[in-house]
Amino acid sequence: VEAGDAAQIDQLLDPLHPADIAHLIEQVDASERRDLLNVWNGIDGDILSELDDGIREEIIENLAPSQLAEAVRDLESDDVVDLVEYLDEEQQEAVLGALEGADRVVVEKALAYPEESAGRHMQVEVVQAPEHWTVGQMIDYLRSEDVELPDQFYHVILVDARIKPVAYVTLGRVLSARRDTPLRDIAEESFRTFNIEDPVGDVAHAFNHYHLISAPVVDNDDRLVGVITIDDAMILLDEEHEEDILRLAGVGEGSLTDTVIETTKQRMPWLAVNLVTAVLASGVIGLFEDAISAIVALAVLMPIVASMGGNAGTQSLTVAVRAIATRALTGSNVWRVIRRELLVGAVNGVLFAVVLGIFGFAWFGSPMLGVVLAAAMIINLVVAGLAGTGIPVILEKLGIDPALASGAFVTTMTDVVGFFAFLGLASVVLL
Amino acid sequence: VEAGDAAQIDQLLDPLHPADIAHLIEQVDASERRDLLNVWNGIDGDILSELDDGIREEIIENLAPSQLAEAVRDLESDDVVDLVEYLDEEQQEAVLGALEGADRVVVEKALAYPEESAGRHMQVEVVQAPEHWTVGQMIDYLRSEDVELPDQFYHVILVDARIKPVAYVTLGRVLSARRDTPLRDIAEESFRTFNIEDPVGDVAHAFNHYHLISAPVVDNDDRLVGVITIDDAMILLDEEHEEDILRLAGVGEGSLTDTVIETTKQRMPWLAVNLVTAVLASGVIGLFEDAISAIVALAVLMPIVASMGGNAGTQSLTVAVRAIATRALTGSNVWRVIRRELLVGAVNGVLFAVVLGIFGFAWFGSPMLGVVLAAAMIINLVVAGLAGTGIPVILEKLGIDPALASGAFVTTMTDVVGFFAFLGLASVVLL
Repeated sequence: VEAGDAAQIDQLLDPLHPADIAHLIEQVDASERRDLLNVWNGIDGDILSELDDGIREEIIENLAPSQLAEAVRDLESDDVVDLVEYLDEEQQEAVLGALEGADRVVVEKALAYPEESAGRHMQVEVVQAPEHWTVGQMIDYLRSEDVELPDQFYHVILVDARIKPVAYVTLGRVLSARRDTPLRDIAEESFRTFNIEDPVGDVAHAFNHYHLISAPVVDNDDRLVGVITIDDAMILLDEEHEEDILRLAGVGEGSLTDTVIETTKQRMPWLAVNLVTAVLASGVIGLFEDAISAIVALAVLMPIVASMGGNAGTQSLTVAVRAIATRALTGSNVWRVIRRELLVGAVNGVLFAVVLGIFGFAWFGSPMLGVVLAAAMIINLVVAGLAGTGIPVILEKLGIDPALASGAFVTTMTDVVGFFAFLGLASVVLL
Repeated sequence: VEAGDAAQIDQLLDPLHPADIAHLIEQVDASERRDLLNVWNGIDGDILSELDDGIREEIIENLAPSQLAEAVRDLESDDVVDLVEYLDEEQQEAVLGALEGADRVVVEKALAYPEESAGRHMQVEVVQAPEHWTVGQMIDYLRSEDVELPDQFYHVILVDARIKPVAYVTLGRVLSARRDTPLRDIAEESFRTFNIEDPVGDVAHAFNHYHLISAPVVDNDDRLVGVITIDDAMILLDEEHEEDILRLAGVGEGSLTDTVIETTKQRMPWLAVNLVTAVLASGVIGLFEDAISAIVALAVLMPIVASMGGNAGTQSLTVAVRAIATRALTGSNVWRVIRRELLVGAVNGVLFAVVLGIFGFAWFGSPMLGVVLAAAMIINLVVAGLAGTGIPVILEKLGIDPALASGAFVTTMTDVVGFFAFLGLASVVLL
């Protein structure tokens, strides 16, 4: 198909959803992508919005200014902000230049809010009404020709004379009430507003926690300036999760479409941190060279203790990081959770100590070696429970993202303690 | 406050959102919770819905049948299903018994669908209209007294004579159109239906991918039987993520409120798997006992190679598992992704090999030891890239959840290869 037949490509892609077209563009490799875009010029704003950052940049670079202008003109303000926020300055300028005056001002204002804030991600197209209106007035207003409505809206926000949001009404209620009903009477009971500076993580969490569908955003004078809707909140929540999962694994940002060089750069820092911690653990082993040359079995068995500790630590750590992210782990229950993790570590430690002690005895024929192995296992699993919960909690208190940094600390801890406990005990007991 | 003053507790809890009350109930410990519920009987269906499974069971056990009946009567059908699906049979029976006949039938029907299916999670309260209606007819229908509308709805689904959904109209459009406009003319262009048997993971992904707000669910005859809305989809997506994150860390299910015994049971199987793989790795080390007794430095350095490989493998693995979950990694780009991971492994391998080679030489004064360390590092990071991507892809093809099982396979691989490459090369080169 990539043999230059634009009409046929058009016919193939036309019935697809923009998200699917974007997916397709991401799936093919770089040279196929260039070929496709040379013959097919159907890229519009919706497709651009759906693309991965890297590929979006690549494509915007190759678009003619007029094509770009046309592509972004139909997007809502928040989609344009999403589109341009991670572009380099030159490209950002090109996109903004393509917007009409008023739209441009809106986008520039949004970009002035801090990254990852409610102000950045809100939509400024809001349907609002004075709080004293009736259902009839509302419907007449919505039907009047000169009102430009957002593509999708689910609530009407009621505001007082100072444009402060005071309540909201779902469209379902507006539709099912009589024309003379005051809007106030059918307003929802629970009602939450966000400030423009609220971090998007909190916003996404609140949508999920309170099952919000949309929520007004106010400036520092409490005046209504925009709205965040659940579809945006769902995307934000998805991104938060993605970030957590990737950070826990030490991958940072990055997507499948990044190049080898980009990916190597993303992963190297974490591997470098791991190298330092691994060398630290090696240093601990180095302290016991004499013991190892005397009993080689120690070298054979020591990775088991460290590896079990590392795994148990990662378990505790992941549970703690998730609990912090979902606000389930707070100051009031942190000691209870730590106590639980210590106990779990102790119980699992004893169970595996028995198994491993017997195993060590059976393999190397030394009952004392089995005892040392068992004791080191218990110590390391208890430390794993303590470190796995305590470290993320402390990092959170220090204002450091626990998903990002905990892993390295916890595995260093379990490696060092694992080797030290096993080899140290062995030196004392067996030599 | 827990001194028995029910009125005061009422006053404190009353202004709170049910989700916050549930959160509070989860935060306090078991005996405080019992005290609280002895003096305060404000538990309603909304609060029960928000609670963690374990605590919900505990509370339902202690509720009088009449209290339980009252609590569940006001919930929508999908919320009742969520509430009861993981209760034991006796409790399920008690809740179902509290429902009125028609509601009970609906819930029992939903429970008959497979777990984690669209049918289980849909809401049967749907606002539908014949496709030939006008805006005016629609509004009159919604306003009529004898129609019972769901609490929240955002779309009207148009159906044909066979109750097959053919299009949907957003309420915003209904409100802003003139009364004589046919609903067909203001229907949305893109439109997606789900089958009752579709897995919820796919449903959640489709909502996120296509930015759906609500979508009709049809039975095997294509007849409209329910609707899934974005707020439910958001919860499903959140659960999928949670599951992925916990499975990757080998934690399985489980929440902060589980007891020590429950938590120990959840984590033990993963630790047991890890024990087997660690013993396997030890076996590899055991093959080289002679080399280690000759050169103790090998024992000191060998964990570095294994640990770097394990980390790099986890990075590749996490990216692959996420890409499979978001459908970004498919048959068409799998070879490209594997090639990229191999190259990233090789580049990082060479970089860290140089650092580590120099380090090994400097520490132990043997240039050949540095070379062996460097070579083993390159081999292990390339294997990590290959295994980290290949193993989840193969597991996915075999129908096994890659998030669940990949970790153990990948770290076994990097441990075994790491120890074997380093000690094997050392035996050949240095002895």
